[in-house]
Amino acid sequence: MSILVVGSVAFDTIATPSGRAENILGGAATYFSLAASYFTSVRMVAVVGEDFTADNEAVLKKRGVDTRGIERTKGKTFRWGGQYLDSLNEAKTDFTELNVFENFQPRIPSEYSDTQFLFLANIHPTLQAAVRLEMDGVRLTGGDTMNFWIRGTPKELAETLKLVNVLLINDTETKMLAGEQNLPRAARKVLAMGPQALVVKHGEYGATIFFRQGAFGIGSHPFRAPALPIEEVKDPTGAGDSFAGGFMGYIASQGEINREVLKRALFYGGVMGSFAVERFGTERLQELTRDEIDARFQVFRELTHLE
Amino acid sequence: MSILVVGSVAFDTIATPSGRAENILGGAATYFSLAASYFTSVRMVAVVGEDFTADNEAVLKKRGVDTRGIERTKGKTFRWGGQYLDSLNEAKTDFTELNVFENFQPRIPSEYSDTQFLFLANIHPTLQAAVRLEMDGVRLTGGDTMNFWIRGTPKELAETLKLVNVLLINDTETKMLAGEQNLPRAARKVLAMGPQALVVKHGEYGATIFFRQGAFGIGSHPFRAPALPIEEVKDPTGAGDSFAGGFMGYIASQGEINREVLKRALFYGGVMGSFAVERFGTERLQELTRDEIDARFQVFRELTHLE
Repeated sequence: MSILVVGSVAFDTIATPSGRAENILGGAATYFSLAASYFTSVRMVAVVGEDFTADNEAVLKKRGVDTRGIERTKGKTFRWGGQYLDSLNEAKTDFTELNVFENFQPRIPSEYSDTQFLFLANIHPTLQAAVRLEMDGVRLTGGDTMNFWIRGTPKELAETLKLVNVLLINDTETKMLAGEQNLPRAARKVLAMGPQALVVKHGEYGATIFFRQGAFGIGSHPFRAPALPIEEVKDPTGAGDSFAGGFMGYIASQGEINREVLKRALFYGGVMGSFAVERFGTERLQELTRDEIDARFQVFRELTHLE
Repeated sequence: MSILVVGSVAFDTIATPSGRAENILGGAATYFSLAASYFTSVRMVAVVGEDFTADNEAVLKKRGVDTRGIERTKGKTFRWGGQYLDSLNEAKTDFTELNVFENFQPRIPSEYSDTQFLFLANIHPTLQAAVRLEMDGVRLTGGDTMNFWIRGTPKELAETLKLVNVLLINDTETKMLAGEQNLPRAARKVLAMGPQALVVKHGEYGATIFFRQGAFGIGSHPFRAPALPIEEVKDPTGAGDSFAGGFMGYIASQGEINREVLKRALFYGGVMGSFAVERFGTERLQELTRDEIDARFQVFRELTHLE
């Protein structure tokens, strides 16, 4: 089943201990779409400027991504510069030029109205809510957010969280959102805000999915998926969005949505995140095969499963 | 098969967000022994002062621990004071009084000479090496160390690492020991120093065991076990030593030592660590049953295993 992602397309300038890259195609919606494209058909809603070339679009089209929702407008595409020279676990932002992204008003093409799976990447929570309310037939909505919105627009975010089925954020964001330092207690508080499930991403330690009591099945036991111990992380940019793409893409590819599907999805999220960081930008995500993905899924399984 | 632990017995004064406790029985060898006692028979070599009472010893004896190797000497037992008021992930030391532990010279009772499994808790690496060299018939040696020895006695530690089969340390210690910030690369460097396996403890994110190529079986894929998301950590003291007790105790209880046994041992390590932190000091470790332990092992399995 198709999945629609609404979020940013960007040109990134990145420095890591492995090298530098300038103005390469990035943005949450781009990473998400490429990662999800190995599981299901993907639709994008985003905004780009006049500097977004046919070659850029071809990267998405080659993976079968429906780009009719990418709006072109006067001006330059969103640009971000960051570096990971001190630590691969945290980006230091060098510059942010919002450009056309500053006035992004997501417009959903009428051809997308039958979409059943939706991912609201990290944009203003009011825009996230508006998109969700416009999409009547959606079966499952995933969402991301960040510290900036948690601190700056808590009321708007609270409204959005009521519309999101699965929230995907990291440890720090979870604790900040809940105002609680203990992770499982923080998770319980976040689930009380709306989502039926919360995926907490732990970076190199994997991710945990917490379920609201009774949601997607019986009980409320959490589930943990690992991350792959990787000897050379070339570029961590987009790892979280690639995780979300693998996670949501796998769910959208399944007929049923139950706890076992969500657990497997957590593994596929980790798998796609592990590929993303192997090369600069979206390079690795452009040329995978489903066989490679499933082979790595097996590696993740062997990393955690007893005989 | 019996396991011998050589390490500290202490009286701890601890403050955590859940409360305070003064002069309660602790020390690495104590936590290790109690945790391991649910899997196999345990022998202890340690030193205590005149303040170590029959009641203190009874805590160990009740769990069947062989205390003939606990030397009583003039003076006071090792005392440690610490608190976790800012963060449950890291102790702030208030005071350390080494007392009789300062001149600890491990003496192995002749009755212990047939010991097949040995755990060298965190003491001076030269003492660790001397104990290991004295124990001819040992099949497997586990060891711990800390930043203090990594920085202060690197040469002595290097000699000890050649005698240790499985080293159990945390992320920070692994990276410091290897002089390398990337975990899997750091693990490879540590394995080149001697151990056949390295267990890296990640605190609330579990632990990873890295194998030297071909050690304990084919290949060199690492394996990850989770930690339990716990809503109320009462007292983190001794979690690492309880982990080591569960890990080594389970191995000693098995006939064969192979990779599958080591993987299960990693799970049992996490299980015993998760019990240890539920109450102050060794309280929870004194009154467990093997059924409770195996039930929690199942919880750990469900936390990580797909259908």
